[in-house]
Amino acid sequence: MKTHPRCAPCLLSRVQFEAELSTKDVTLQKKAIIAGIEVLRKYMVDGAPATHLSTKIHREAYKILGDIDPYFEKKKESNAYALKLLPFARDFVMEKDHFRRAVLVSIIGNSFDFGVLGFDADKATAKDMMKKQFHHGLDVDDSDKIRIMLENVVYLADNCGEIIFDTLLFEEIKKLGGKVTLVVRGAPILNDVTMTELIELGIDKKVDSVLTTGSNAIGVCLKEAPPELVDALKSASLIISKGMANYETMSEYDFKPIAYLLKTKCDSVAEALELSKNMNVARLEL
Amino acid sequence: MKTHPRCAPCLLSRVQFEAELSTKDVTLQKKAIIAGIEVLRKYMVDGAPATHLSTKIHREAYKILGDIDPYFEKKKESNAYALKLLPFARDFVMEKDHFRRAVLVSIIGNSFDFGVLGFDADKATAKDMMKKQFHHGLDVDDSDKIRIMLENVVYLADNCGEIIFDTLLFEEIKKLGGKVTLVVRGAPILNDVTMTELIELGIDKKVDSVLTTGSNAIGVCLKEAPPELVDALKSASLIISKGMANYETMSEYDFKPIAYLLKTKCDSVAEALELSKNMNVARLEL
Repeated sequence: MKTHPRCAPCLLSRVQFEAELSTKDVTLQKKAIIAGIEVLRKYMVDGAPATHLSTKIHREAYKILGDIDPYFEKKKESNAYALKLLPFARDFVMEKDHFRRAVLVSIIGNSFDFGVLGFDADKATAKDMMKKQFHHGLDVDDSDKIRIMLENVVYLADNCGEIIFDTLLFEEIKKLGGKVTLVVRGAPILNDVTMTELIELGIDKKVDSVLTTGSNAIGVCLKEAPPELVDALKSASLIISKGMANYETMSEYDFKPIAYLLKTKCDSVAEALELSKNMNVARLEL
Repeated sequence: MKTHPRCAPCLLSRVQFEAELSTKDVTLQKKAIIAGIEVLRKYMVDGAPATHLSTKIHREAYKILGDIDPYFEKKKESNAYALKLLPFARDFVMEKDHFRRAVLVSIIGNSFDFGVLGFDADKATAKDMMKKQFHHGLDVDDSDKIRIMLENVVYLADNCGEIIFDTLLFEEIKKLGGKVTLVVRGAPILNDVTMTELIELGIDKKVDSVLTTGSNAIGVCLKEAPPELVDALKSASLIISKGMANYETMSEYDFKPIAYLLKTKCDSVAEALELSKNMNVARLEL
């Protein structure tokens, strides 16, 4: 996915968000913002993939802030909160139509994303929001086709919080005889899952193997990925790509078949998918 | 009011908003955003008043877009919509406690501001929103002190839409024996009122005299203001300053007494006033 002009204010807004998470020192926040402006000025060129820009801007901000993980607390909070909601989500999945519902729940989990412009999980109403989304269902539903391709799945994880709901989908994949190779970020970036949280949550034991993207790049940056990941992507019966950042990068490569499971949380991703904002999407590309 | 780092993403987001209002040509939108980034890079210096930066960034965007009034349609829409709500607001004011309620209504009108990050009037629920705000009342209420200083008021207008609700306050000021010199922007900027809309709506006939700020600067820029405005500000029994942009500029000068009537729609303005976000403020400074 290419950069849209509206990515610029959104990226800068996330830099400010993480600067405020990291420090109360407004002078330091300002340095991070000015560094962000400089990155936008240098790299917002025609045809650049959106994640080239976002990786650069966040790395620069983290460097200025002297903070390798500004979302540390937020990640803990969203995992703890998602764990509380998990039994409720599990009941919904177990009632009927398990696989499709597990797909839906994993996409609803993708809404629990702190820091996207205009979105912050309102904890008091999260259960109501989930109920509404259960009722809303999938706007793009390729789950029946996805269901028969699960032999050897490479699962590209996205955020903390969301990963808790993903576990219900891992269970369904395994019940259907499939294997899951779970891929998390190689180092902290935004509120994305890394090996640290995975082990803390014991989720590494719920899948067949775990790989990392090899770096803290947004999404999957092949230049920085270990060869095992490239091999896994090539030999998978299906890649399941969770969330917008993974979509933004994987749509630049040619690994197929791939299933994008995401909530269209911004206009740019929605437009790239030729869909509208706020849709629950399970799209298979062969 | 000085620039806060969080002003940068917000300003850039407004540039994108007006670029989308002005054109569907994404290449042109991008040029406006890149020009905005350049303005931020050059002028986001320590201690700069926020409106220096915002005036520069919007002027640059308008120049790139080749559009002297990207909000032309939005302004018409918000005036038409506010006119529909006016009888409802008038009933509330006329019921009791006229002056205080007219002050409150003019501040609620300040919420009808298109283009501030994260806010867009939801038309279906605007009446409900007004009711809630009637109930909420004034968070800072100097209206009793303001009420006895109305002999010769200079009233700095803010947005279209809002100006319709201001007319109820003009009526109350006149009933109390006061005179109103209304000040609008000298040329189109954002969704602010100019002489064009004022005459179109016949509001020039509801006040004693009308002046302009002399330019399309955000708020009031004295360097660009006609001498009549400076004289009026100096000799007023009270300046009533509506909205955030007028606050951002007038708080840099030393004209007193001044009453700031506004909704704290962003953290930066709220912090500068030592208040919280989303408060209804009628603060007198002597």
